[in-house]
Amino acid sequence: MTAPIEPFRAMAIGQLAHKLAAEGRSVIHMEYGQPSTSAPAAALAKAHQVLDTEAQGYWESAPLKERIARHYAETQSVTIRPDQVILTCGASPALLLALSSAFAPGARIVCARPGYVAYRNTLRALHMEPLEIPCGAAERYQITAAALEAIHPAPDGVIIASPANPTGTIIAPDELATIAAVCARRGIRIISDEIYHGLSYTGPCVSALVHAPDALVVNSFSKYFSMPGWRLGWLAAPEDLVDAAYARMSNLMLTPPVLAQHAGLIAFDCDDELQGHIATYAANREAMLAALPALGLGEIAPPDGAFYIWADIGHLTNDSMEFCTRLLQETGVACAPGVDFDPVDGHRFMRFSFAVSTPLVNEAIERMIPWFARQRGAGQG
Amino acid sequence: MTAPIEPFRAMAIGQLAHKLAAEGRSVIHMEYGQPSTSAPAAALAKAHQVLDTEAQGYWESAPLKERIARHYAETQSVTIRPDQVILTCGASPALLLALSSAFAPGARIVCARPGYVAYRNTLRALHMEPLEIPCGAAERYQITAAALEAIHPAPDGVIIASPANPTGTIIAPDELATIAAVCARRGIRIISDEIYHGLSYTGPCVSALVHAPDALVVNSFSKYFSMPGWRLGWLAAPEDLVDAAYARMSNLMLTPPVLAQHAGLIAFDCDDELQGHIATYAANREAMLAALPALGLGEIAPPDGAFYIWADIGHLTNDSMEFCTRLLQETGVACAPGVDFDPVDGHRFMRFSFAVSTPLVNEAIERMIPWFARQRGAGQG
Repeated sequence: MTAPIEPFRAMAIGQLAHKLAAEGRSVIHMEYGQPSTSAPAAALAKAHQVLDTEAQGYWESAPLKERIARHYAETQSVTIRPDQVILTCGASPALLLALSSAFAPGARIVCARPGYVAYRNTLRALHMEPLEIPCGAAERYQITAAALEAIHPAPDGVIIASPANPTGTIIAPDELATIAAVCARRGIRIISDEIYHGLSYTGPCVSALVHAPDALVVNSFSKYFSMPGWRLGWLAAPEDLVDAAYARMSNLMLTPPVLAQHAGLIAFDCDDELQGHIATYAANREAMLAALPALGLGEIAPPDGAFYIWADIGHLTNDSMEFCTRLLQETGVACAPGVDFDPVDGHRFMRFSFAVSTPLVNEAIERMIPWFARQRGAGQG
Repeated sequence: MTAPIEPFRAMAIGQLAHKLAAEGRSVIHMEYGQPSTSAPAAALAKAHQVLDTEAQGYWESAPLKERIARHYAETQSVTIRPDQVILTCGASPALLLALSSAFAPGARIVCARPGYVAYRNTLRALHMEPLEIPCGAAERYQITAAALEAIHPAPDGVIIASPANPTGTIIAPDELATIAAVCARRGIRIISDEIYHGLSYTGPCVSALVHAPDALVVNSFSKYFSMPGWRLGWLAAPEDLVDAAYARMSNLMLTPPVLAQHAGLIAFDCDDELQGHIATYAANREAMLAALPALGLGEIAPPDGAFYIWADIGHLTNDSMEFCTRLLQETGVACAPGVDFDPVDGHRFMRFSFAVSTPLVNEAIERMIPWFARQRGAGQG
């Protein structure tokens, strides 16, 4: 039989949010993991130019592959060839290519719980077995080398994410090196989701390629480059899997969008504008952290990077989907229910995405403080 | 182990063609199955407007889903709900969703040989078993109801394509009804690739949905709508598979490109411009058919639709990849080797795509006639 997999519930919250907005309600979108800003101005200008001058057939940008390879040399001191870069229609398809290229049905793949919803569901859709390791605040919500060492028999692979969704935590550089060593020794293939690289507040983002040249690395233009709806990402494939990954891309997806490839190349030269977004996220993060006591939210992950806060709301609800739906209906603040990210404990967690403007974050906090106070009162009443 | 699948070799021809063009050679691109025209003018104008006004986050266009549902009502007298339309990043991902939603690893899926390369390879990547039925000129290179009836035990599914790639043949309406009846009786699920609907020269294109409401239908904006590089397609999913297909889209791909969705909606109102392209293809088809005797090519499929001619070159070569590479190097005319479409007999076939301008088709013919004459001479020498 086909694999039963679950929908991404934040999408349902998003649809309700759009419906309320269409009805005239003031809605603040903190449910999606995406920047509210547009692509960099120079990338938009390039897209205008391409619209006017190119027919836009099936195309893969060789200059973009070269630029991405150079990016690894410049930011990680890692050498990869341009043809190891497989351009995709976003990070989600890149993960699909990575898993499909490296593993077969029945493969046992470790991932952290909580973790991004698509890890579990894409593994299941491919008839692989997600081994979800419960990761709490003590482990900074991340898989540890010790946890990987303790799994018997050795799993086929592990998906790591740093900074992570939904928690924003970063795997410490030393720990990443140890994880790579354990994986090398035990024959565990690393899939590293590096989609939030570039978005960090407490330290650098180190690529898995630094320690594990045989890792498959997933990345995209959706976060740092502020181009989620353009649908462009990439897979950096190791030598032994380049052909398998490219064959899958050309058959399962064909090519990524032309405009996005042109614009994405330009976006690499837009650091000034993009660093402005990071400054906004940093201010938003400070505002949210400062507001947590007033919201009555104590247990959170350390948001080292990305643009998320993962909060324990177990004292207020046992049904995070109902909680987030009611929060949206009553305040106009849309957030993601924890059940997307943790099928076991997610009913008592929620995720705030603070990738909106700072005034909107402050407005959301103002709306939420009295609402959360009422929930605490109701819980105690 | 992971499934070994082959690359799409026309891509290698395309890369060589681009390399030669970059070196200053005059290259005529008849290797890709894509229009050389751009998106309709009104669709381009809409894209310019969206670039200037929207941030382009993750988004699914409800109006586009409604418009596509209406399209089935208007052109096929078939009723589907908008939420049965799953928007995708092109037809290739729509096929992936269809197969993954309807079947499990080990499923036996019938497809025609010759046929589009991604059918066989996507099935293999998903660890399903392609049952390739040899279809010759006598069957107009199409699977027949009789052939489906003769397979024991009954297969799990069948992929039909009408008009087909690489042959352009259309399944006759009566035969399509009979195929649907056989499939209903034997419990064979139909996947219908209707990407070339709208491009026909000898009769109407009938959707599988007319006869098989439980079919999964794949389509895209890449052919009739002349938007291949925009990466937008759809899957029309039957009632019992809508949830499974939507869950796969949201996890495996997330959302399709925003600009393409806006432009695609407008493209539905651009029939005047798009019918002009069909008139060009019809003229090109006549020119190619008229030139076949001079090229010494007799055995071809009847190109009812699409923009292809599938030609037997067995009297000239046993290696269609080498033949097409040499044709490109010596004349600048790029064509697709038959091996992409038929792993058994494709070494003695090639595919011409005539979706370029009529002057270019005529120029290609002029260059090819003496070259083919030399090959005949060499073969006889």
